[in-house]
Amino acid sequence: MATYITVDIGGTQLRAARFSGQGTTPDEVIRTPTKSKDSAPLDRLIKLIADAWPTGEQVQAIGVAVPGPTDPYQGVVIEAPNIPGWNDLPLRQILEERFQTPVALGNDANMAALGEWRYGAGSGSHDLLYLTVSTGIGSGVIMRDRLLLGARGLAGELGHLTVMPDGPMCGCGQRGHLEALASGTALLGWVKEQLAAGATSILAEENKISGLQITRAAELGDGLAIKALDRCGTYVGIALASFLHIFNPSVVVIGGGVSRSGDFLMKPLHLALESHVMNHAYLEGLKIYPALYGDEVGLVGALALIRELHPE
Amino acid sequence: MATYITVDIGGTQLRAARFSGQGTTPDEVIRTPTKSKDSAPLDRLIKLIADAWPTGEQVQAIGVAVPGPTDPYQGVVIEAPNIPGWNDLPLRQILEERFQTPVALGNDANMAALGEWRYGAGSGSHDLLYLTVSTGIGSGVIMRDRLLLGARGLAGELGHLTVMPDGPMCGCGQRGHLEALASGTALLGWVKEQLAAGATSILAEENKISGLQITRAAELGDGLAIKALDRCGTYVGIALASFLHIFNPSVVVIGGGVSRSGDFLMKPLHLALESHVMNHAYLEGLKIYPALYGDEVGLVGALALIRELHPE
Repeated sequence: MATYITVDIGGTQLRAARFSGQGTTPDEVIRTPTKSKDSAPLDRLIKLIADAWPTGEQVQAIGVAVPGPTDPYQGVVIEAPNIPGWNDLPLRQILEERFQTPVALGNDANMAALGEWRYGAGSGSHDLLYLTVSTGIGSGVIMRDRLLLGARGLAGELGHLTVMPDGPMCGCGQRGHLEALASGTALLGWVKEQLAAGATSILAEENKISGLQITRAAELGDGLAIKALDRCGTYVGIALASFLHIFNPSVVVIGGGVSRSGDFLMKPLHLALESHVMNHAYLEGLKIYPALYGDEVGLVGALALIRELHPE
Repeated sequence: MATYITVDIGGTQLRAARFSGQGTTPDEVIRTPTKSKDSAPLDRLIKLIADAWPTGEQVQAIGVAVPGPTDPYQGVVIEAPNIPGWNDLPLRQILEERFQTPVALGNDANMAALGEWRYGAGSGSHDLLYLTVSTGIGSGVIMRDRLLLGARGLAGELGHLTVMPDGPMCGCGQRGHLEALASGTALLGWVKEQLAAGATSILAEENKISGLQITRAAELGDGLAIKALDRCGTYVGIALASFLHIFNPSVVVIGGGVSRSGDFLMKPLHLALESHVMNHAYLEGLKIYPALYGDEVGLVGALALIRELHPE
């Protein structure tokens, strides 16, 4: 019975899980802050893996979900925007030398797509899109049972589709991307902008607004909150129509905090999708599912990757 | 030495080519109008293939490039907008029963992508985008040496990316698609609109304007013509940045009549691409090539398909 270790690197937290056998329930999950005065993120990551190591046992492979563009072929973190100094970091080589066991890396949204496809909401499908709408918009694509990677492993960044050429600024520094219009950050930004312009809303009384508060306000019938979620769902729906034309998937899995806004988001999303798709054939048999996994999806996705690359 | 027959179905013309041996130069190409008072397009297609058949020899396989959405798994033409009555036509079955030899179908733009990837400008690459900018915008995608097909074979329709949500009407009936902004039809439409609004241009003297005339006028320094091609190249460049984020290809092949406008199109295209791509890593090592093949690309691409599916 092989043991696998997977790690999810976040901007604030590092998590490691140890799996044995066939399931997707970890034997143990341990975590530590990513940043600390005492030690660098890379040293903290190495210590966390060592702590997760099973006493006296071998580990078949280590899988790592990285928060930023990653070259999975070379095993190099190209950039991790939230971790200072992680540019062109040969993380696979570093970890393989340290732990003397095979290591595989992947962008965290790609790992999440693998997790939902192999074990989650899209299990059994062959052509799947995964979108997570939270602070940003992450995504991954499975086509004919393979993760879409592209020449350097940078494919699948669906959040950086230009939806409105001169639209609002995106976190990546470009304008009008889906992420700049429909992410949680964009949702909050738009609500704040409307409030500053004098819109009336129960949200005006709040000191600090969250996505969850916008959903709550919408449930109470607040017009601004309903409009904000409608706008977000509409943009995701418009982009999704483009993605159907591009990928013709059989399953779309939608995760992330914003996706938990229920019908306030999903109804306009479906409406925009249906009114923007060019041929009904793209919708025939298409399933749109909420994600099965929450925060643990990166750990489970990295497991799917290393189980395939390094089977027992 | 196996013989292959490929057919390119156009709205105005049917063409059949016969290939033997390893090359991509056909032994013979024959053609006939698609429509005629005397016979239906399907009967004309069958007669054309029979005419291309080598006397007394066997044919290894027949490959067919179809002008419209096609299900390559089922061998069914879902819709051929320019051929009345071709809806859900089981063309593979019909041809296999008639000719007693294996038949494979594909959308013509997908076949063109295969042709440019296997034998043309993108030969040797593994991750390729093909865009043809002519009357419409056709496209096909090769990822890790496989044609991107999707669940029903309808993937790769990059021309139907929404670039401007409330933009001009596209031929498909939806608004703001790349094809509605940057195809040859869109280019002509925009020039006519500007002329009607009183723009000065040497094109104002022409009775009927073609894409070639716009390029010629641009070469003569005509401001409107230059602006029209600039606008077209800019939209293709903006969309291409999205496609790089989505696919991370190593090669982009651009074909079609409009692509022959040279720097008037390609300079703004490169400018828009470079200013819209979110990370320089997407441009590193990226090659953008003009297509090697012209009108014959569908015939050659269908050959690539059937040589792979039915090798000698």
